Amino acid sequence: MNTYFDPSVQHALDLVGIFVFAISGALLAVRKNFDVFGMATLAEATGLGGGLFRDVVIGSVPPAAFEDLGYFLTPLLATALVFFLHPVVERINYAVLVFDAAGLGLFCATGTLKAHQYGLSLPASVALGLATAAGGGMLRDVLANEVPQLLRWDREMYAVPAIVGAGTVALLLRTSTLNAATMSAAALLAFALRMLSLRYGWRAPRAWHRTSRRTADTSASG
Amino acid sequence: MNTYFDPSVQHALDLVGIFVFAISGALLAVRKNFDVFGMATLAEATGLGGGLFRDVVIGSVPPAAFEDLGYFLTPLLATALVFFLHPVVERINYAVLVFDAAGLGLFCATGTLKAHQYGLSLPASVALGLATAAGGGMLRDVLANEVPQLLRWDREMYAVPAIVGAGTVALLLRTSTLNAATMSAAALLAFALRMLSLRYGWRAPRAWHRTSRRTADTSASG
Amino acid sequence: MNTYFDPSVQHALDLVGIFVFAISGALLAVRKNFDVFGMATLAEATGLGGGLFRDVVIGSVPPAAFEDLGYFLTPLLATALVFFLHPVVERINYAVLVFDAAGLGLFCATGTLKAHQYGLSLPASVALGLATAAGGGMLRDVLANEVPQLLRWDREMYAVPAIVGAGTVALLLRTSTLNAATMSAAALLAFALRMLSLRYGWRAPRAWHRTSRRTADTSASG
Repeated sequence: MNTYFDPSVQHALDLVGIFVFAISGALLAVRKNFDVFGMATLAEATGLGGGLFRDVVIGSVPPAAFEDLGYFLTPLLATALVFFLHPVVERINYAVLVFDAAGLGLFCATGTLKAHQYGLSLPASVALGLATAAGGGMLRDVLANEVPQLLRWDREMYAVPAIVGAGTVALLLRTSTLNAATMSAAALLAFALRMLSLRYGWRAPRAWHRTSRRTADTSASG
Repeated sequence: MNTYFDPSVQHALDLVGIFVFAISGALLAVRKNFDVFGMATLAEATGLGGGLFRDVVIGSVPPAAFEDLGYFLTPLLATALVFFLHPVVERINYAVLVFDAAGLGLFCATGTLKAHQYGLSLPASVALGLATAAGGGMLRDVLANEVPQLLRWDREMYAVPAIVGAGTVALLLRTSTLNAATMSAAALLAFALRMLSLRYGWRAPRAWHRTSRRTADTSASG
Repeated sequence: MNTYFDPSVQHALDLVGIFVFAISGALLAVRKNFDVFGMATLAEATGLGGGLFRDVVIGSVPPAAFEDLGYFLTPLLATALVFFLHPVVERINYAVLVFDAAGLGLFCATGTLKAHQYGLSLPASVALGLATAAGGGMLRDVLANEVPQLLRWDREMYAVPAIVGAGTVALLLRTSTLNAATMSAAALLAFALRMLSLRYGWRAPRAWHRTSRRTADTSASG
């Protein structure tokens, strides 16, 4: 259905995105002291959750996650890697963040496009692009009984890069200028914004006038 | 599809319900110290989550939440309001409870009707009416890593008013007496029951013979 | 659609599985000090959650949980039982584990079959069989704000029996040898593995080289 890219390129990029998201799920499972099946479950949920939500919402069932065996096996590969090599993977934590940012850029772009191809309006497509990019991580944190990283103030910006990337794709669709080059540029833009947020510790503001919390929270409010 | 009401009236009431639910989501995000994107995420999830669940279950995809731009923008408006004015909004906490009760009444009635219009049986429609009214708040609490208010014993009754409202609509459908007036009466009944629960601190009973918990829980059991 | 069994037998077994899962949900609600509606919500979520997820993913909407009144009423019956008799039910905790294992065996087998009947590949069907068997318990724990039992290392194996049962059904489908007898054998195999895991405390391994956790976790690593 996606006619903007060579399907095999698209598929390979999808697998890379799923893989890096799955790594983050398996690593959280190790930190939470889960067993190997908990690792696999979190890896699958993180890698496939965002796309699964998108596909169920747009009515693309069975979802791609269950139609393509590679999508399903990739998180298991990530689980095996973390299972045997997790001290090494921990040490390359920065590499994981880079790959995760790449997955973010890719998924916000492809999620927006797929939603639009199923007939959703551009604003709704942007929302689903964000959900595709961020949904897996949300599900990962909910299943692990943690406050989702996306929601926390003390984490570098994650939603903004995804929204910018998804919004750029929507703009390209609106102006009929979407092609492989501009789509890649949108994904790269989201990737770059995420990397800059991590590098410079950019955070999103919190609500104004947070006076009632001053005793419990001595840090400067946004 | 809904032929019982003027569509524009129905739409306006839906937006009001989404708005007040979204306010409660954004306020919880402030209390949890989330940033502005966490506020928007919780506001969207609270305002749209119940209807989204209903629409996915009955096969109405893409869900109304993604078909109607107003549905999507309303939680962002609620987020902006809370972001700039949250001390004021906190102070009018009681007003929020009143609006939330109005949303509860409206959503349990319209959720039941929409499920029935998609061919579900009356009991299943009542269950989906309850899910429409309570699902957003459940999702809000799960995402914020809190025990859902709906489940907690030490909260005033929320499910009972929704069940009574949804059950009344089912009765009206069964007896072919549903019209704008009786539907409004059902929504008002749920609203009134919720307000009375808040006013008089009505709570639902817990399991009998809770002897094993006596040390940890000295309050009288239900 | 399921032509492998007498439909009434299949239906009766489904209700038994839903019932025993619902019991575990209602009991957790009592332990969490929820009121009777919290008990009913957790009972419904635990009994129906796995099948609901499977049906939404394969596009079988409205899901069986909302098409069949018996499916919906069974968790309420379980709730009533636990509400009035929970000290007795607690004492027969082992019986609950046995019934839960029976539900596990049954749901992993029927979930795999139904997914395959809706056109999913065998590996995807196995994944959905596992999701059918384990999804309700996951949802129960997420709603109750607990770390899901399925993920925890210090719990006996749950995923392995379900995977073995679902994989056996897939093998039977592949070799065209699925019938009432072999299907029952697959369900029994999952049941037996779960019971043996409980009896002998079988646990799944955790990631290797977990040196960084040594202070917080003095038990031998897997």
